[in-house]
Amino acid sequence: MFVFFFIMTLHSKLFYNARRRSEIILSRLFVADQINAYKHTFQQKDKICTNGKESRNYSRVKYVTGFVITASLLGIYFYNSSQEKIQTFKQTNDIECGKLRKDLKTYTLEEVGKHYNKENRIWVTYKEGVYDITDFVEQHPGGSSKIMMAAGSSIEPFWLIFANHNTPEIYALLESMRIGNISKTDAKSIISDLNDPYAKEPSRHRALKINGHKPFCAETPSSLLIESFHTPADLFYVRNHLPVPEIDLKTYVIDIAIEENTKKTLDFEAIKKYPKYTVTSAIMCGGNRRSEMAEVKPLKGLSWGVGAVGNATWSGARLCDILKDLGINEEDYDHVQFEGHDVDPSGTPYGASIPISKAMDPRADVLLAYEMNGQPIPRDHGFPIRVIVPGVVGARNVKWLDKIIISKIESQSQWQQGDYKAFSPNTDWDNVDFSKAPAIQEMPVISAICKPEQSEKVKIKDGKIDVKGYAWSGGGRKIIRVDVTCDKGNTWHTADLIEQDLNAKEGRYWSWTLWSINLPVDTKLKEVEIWAKAVDSSYNVQPETVKNIWNLRGFLCNAYHRVKVQLN
Amino acid sequence: MFVFFFIMTLHSKLFYNARRRSEIILSRLFVADQINAYKHTFQQKDKICTNGKESRNYSRVKYVTGFVITASLLGIYFYNSSQEKIQTFKQTNDIECGKLRKDLKTYTLEEVGKHYNKENRIWVTYKEGVYDITDFVEQHPGGSSKIMMAAGSSIEPFWLIFANHNTPEIYALLESMRIGNISKTDAKSIISDLNDPYAKEPSRHRALKINGHKPFCAETPSSLLIESFHTPADLFYVRNHLPVPEIDLKTYVIDIAIEENTKKTLDFEAIKKYPKYTVTSAIMCGGNRRSEMAEVKPLKGLSWGVGAVGNATWSGARLCDILKDLGINEEDYDHVQFEGHDVDPSGTPYGASIPISKAMDPRADVLLAYEMNGQPIPRDHGFPIRVIVPGVVGARNVKWLDKIIISKIESQSQWQQGDYKAFSPNTDWDNVDFSKAPAIQEMPVISAICKPEQSEKVKIKDGKIDVKGYAWSGGGRKIIRVDVTCDKGNTWHTADLIEQDLNAKEGRYWSWTLWSINLPVDTKLKEVEIWAKAVDSSYNVQPETVKNIWNLRGFLCNAYHRVKVQLN
Repeated sequence: MFVFFFIMTLHSKLFYNARRRSEIILSRLFVADQINAYKHTFQQKDKICTNGKESRNYSRVKYVTGFVITASLLGIYFYNSSQEKIQTFKQTNDIECGKLRKDLKTYTLEEVGKHYNKENRIWVTYKEGVYDITDFVEQHPGGSSKIMMAAGSSIEPFWLIFANHNTPEIYALLESMRIGNISKTDAKSIISDLNDPYAKEPSRHRALKINGHKPFCAETPSSLLIESFHTPADLFYVRNHLPVPEIDLKTYVIDIAIEENTKKTLDFEAIKKYPKYTVTSAIMCGGNRRSEMAEVKPLKGLSWGVGAVGNATWSGARLCDILKDLGINEEDYDHVQFEGHDVDPSGTPYGASIPISKAMDPRADVLLAYEMNGQPIPRDHGFPIRVIVPGVVGARNVKWLDKIIISKIESQSQWQQGDYKAFSPNTDWDNVDFSKAPAIQEMPVISAICKPEQSEKVKIKDGKIDVKGYAWSGGGRKIIRVDVTCDKGNTWHTADLIEQDLNAKEGRYWSWTLWSINLPVDTKLKEVEIWAKAVDSSYNVQPETVKNIWNLRGFLCNAYHRVKVQLN
Repeated sequence: MFVFFFIMTLHSKLFYNARRRSEIILSRLFVADQINAYKHTFQQKDKICTNGKESRNYSRVKYVTGFVITASLLGIYFYNSSQEKIQTFKQTNDIECGKLRKDLKTYTLEEVGKHYNKENRIWVTYKEGVYDITDFVEQHPGGSSKIMMAAGSSIEPFWLIFANHNTPEIYALLESMRIGNISKTDAKSIISDLNDPYAKEPSRHRALKINGHKPFCAETPSSLLIESFHTPADLFYVRNHLPVPEIDLKTYVIDIAIEENTKKTLDFEAIKKYPKYTVTSAIMCGGNRRSEMAEVKPLKGLSWGVGAVGNATWSGARLCDILKDLGINEEDYDHVQFEGHDVDPSGTPYGASIPISKAMDPRADVLLAYEMNGQPIPRDHGFPIRVIVPGVVGARNVKWLDKIIISKIESQSQWQQGDYKAFSPNTDWDNVDFSKAPAIQEMPVISAICKPEQSEKVKIKDGKIDVKGYAWSGGGRKIIRVDVTCDKGNTWHTADLIEQDLNAKEGRYWSWTLWSINLPVDTKLKEVEIWAKAVDSSYNVQPETVKNIWNLRGFLCNAYHRVKVQLN
């Protein structure tokens, strides 16, 4: 095993490729579509140095590429609800995870390394602990292919990236699969070269409500959200999936590839030479308002309130102009994939794709944006270039754009294939098949009450209370009406749409709509529940309750928004 | 008054314009935008012959154009619910409408003719009755401008066209406004030259479920509906708004105008010379499933079941190709209006418009179709050319295409401005403002259970029952899932999508989806209620109940479809 790690480390040095001068945070050994080839690679350790795929090194964080063979329990980070547990795996709360257990056998790293497939059982290490995760693999929320990258090695480098694994519940879950120890020396040798990949994150505004530190995920407080039609960049929600890369504009280039072949590279100045377009577009996380869905039944995902959305102007080059320059014929391909500079410990970048019809349609206003609200895009929002796909879920608005791939297939990334999809309420982790649902692209109609907030004491004035919020729909569909009730729908009152993008063209209403109403209330009551529902230009409406749209990942929670307030 | 009618009749003959040789069913005196000029015209009777606008005569039905000045109680035809009545107008059920009432004064037609505005009061005649409708005008569901065309004259020619006015409720409503009589001779003179404008309707298949005879409105029985992915033309629902015109292909031309100026005419052969495109597209009436909405609270509109929808192939020229040929710049205009050859007694054609971005977008597949399911379009469906606007409400798929107008404004027709719009449940006929809601264009997601039908006795086999239906969404959004429950949503079962358009491109799923499920039922129960809900590719879902989407015209009833069945 030591020999193996030595070879792997050597490998990363041998194949250090200086073709890009940009500083890249994380090393990249294998791209996403090589995951399946991984086990094979493992079996041919002696040949691994000949497998000379794109490799990057990054000196600053001294992130050891050899550890790429270690565990990816990617997906377990969804376990942020304390009520949740995976069936058949008992939680063991009374033992500290990874600590030496004298009642168990001690293994060498070499022995652990032999357990990399089902036939030999699948083992991983965490600190001094050895774990048999064979029976858990198929239940892994992030998919079995990702967790198989952990086979025979340590999960620790991954948990440094996906730091929200570090909860008592997940420690307990892992500990329930404990089978042995490795020596203290072995444990230290794994971790010694690892530094915190999140050490270079940008500073953030203190007003943001943080839902996750590593990766950084935070939303705008709802009362601030509707104060401005354009959300200031500092207060704009952040949903990162990996550490924020540090990018030097001088060396920054975007690769444009057709299937596997890079056809063109564009540096920052080349992008800026294209005609500059500005669109005002809301971006919303697929998990916005998830916390309401989690109240119905436990689910996996960050507990967002109503603030995982923002509205900003974005300026940049149109993707359709760039693709046209390249001579792309829309009929020949189906998807345009994007890769970010943010990469996981295996070197796999964040990735997503959109249909080519969207990418090439001038009416779709897809931008390679370099400005947000008239300023260079801040690091947390994708500096220097973020793809803006108006009307489409945030996850496809890829930040820190590194590569564009015109392809017959969708992005094969975990975030396109095994996440950001919604299912029927009858689908659970035992029967879910991610290949059966389409990736979320255009979003459904949604609204939220931002003022007053839940449980707030509200002053009645002339028999009325002030209620404010936002509404939005994907696909450029304009908000045409917002109805509000405080008597469970017996009486509906139509809100004033106080701010909309008046310059938007038909079918290109990418911005949100802010609304307001002076809502009549029964002054005899001490408490009322306010409901809001929006209608878009396709006359799509919101569903009434969360129950019938519940899905195991808690996406697209667009039921009527309900806020209970105390009357003063 | 007689002099006046003589002048009017003369007018129609003098200005008979033979520029089109086509036979046109109904005469046309004034186009829609002249309605407002009408009162003025009235005041200048002696100058009326100089008002030489487009005029047509039609000898076959001997429809006297002079009667254009008579009443249009257009819109009252919505009163097909027996529970409905307009507030403040008491119904008078015990007097036969229009029969001589000896207790009332008798007026001459000349006297009636003086009452054409609010200042002088607004009178109309029906048979031997004279009615003061002044206070009703503003409450007229079809808008006040339409009813003002009745001022000072008879409503009878209009009721021959909008024959579903002929109900006891509407007679009673009119009779409640009775103020006097005209002589039997006068009454006969009005009606003598009128023949039935519906005498030349095409023959229809007996299987159609008729909702209205004049104009003809009929739906496909739900059990037949899902038997075929392509609905046979004979069984395809029909929603006519006026009599079916008879059109001679040899003389048929389409006018293309920019604002008021005709720029080009295209005959049938010219249309056929454009590249021929075929799309499979569902067309759905905005009132489909209205009968369910009417159960919640009375509303106005034909009582459609689930069969006001059909799916067919349509072949023809692309509108975008024609507009491109004309050198139209999309940025310069906002709408493309269509007029049909079907006209009302005032000569106003059926009209509708779509946004120019839709009309000029090759991805929107808007066709001037001359074939339906591979055959010439039948008369009931728009022979020889119907505009097909895939994904958009049936009302904009204008039949018997006569004119295309590229414009900065929407069609000003009643059907675009004062109908086919939906409102909040709190909007009633007292507070509705049609200018406040956008015309329905793209439709929201919908589904329906077609088999079994309401109250049907269903055989259980192996604890399951067969359930089948359709689902569809507007705007080219694909149906991605249909969920079915028979325990009020405690357990959802995902249906099989058995037929979809497999050739459709991304974002261009114009066809419906047929679905089927072998639904587990609690065999101990004697009755279950089945619910179905669909999800489209924007993850829009259906609302749960009709109550919160109720609207006064009963449009877009896309709540969960619920069917109660007996178990055998």
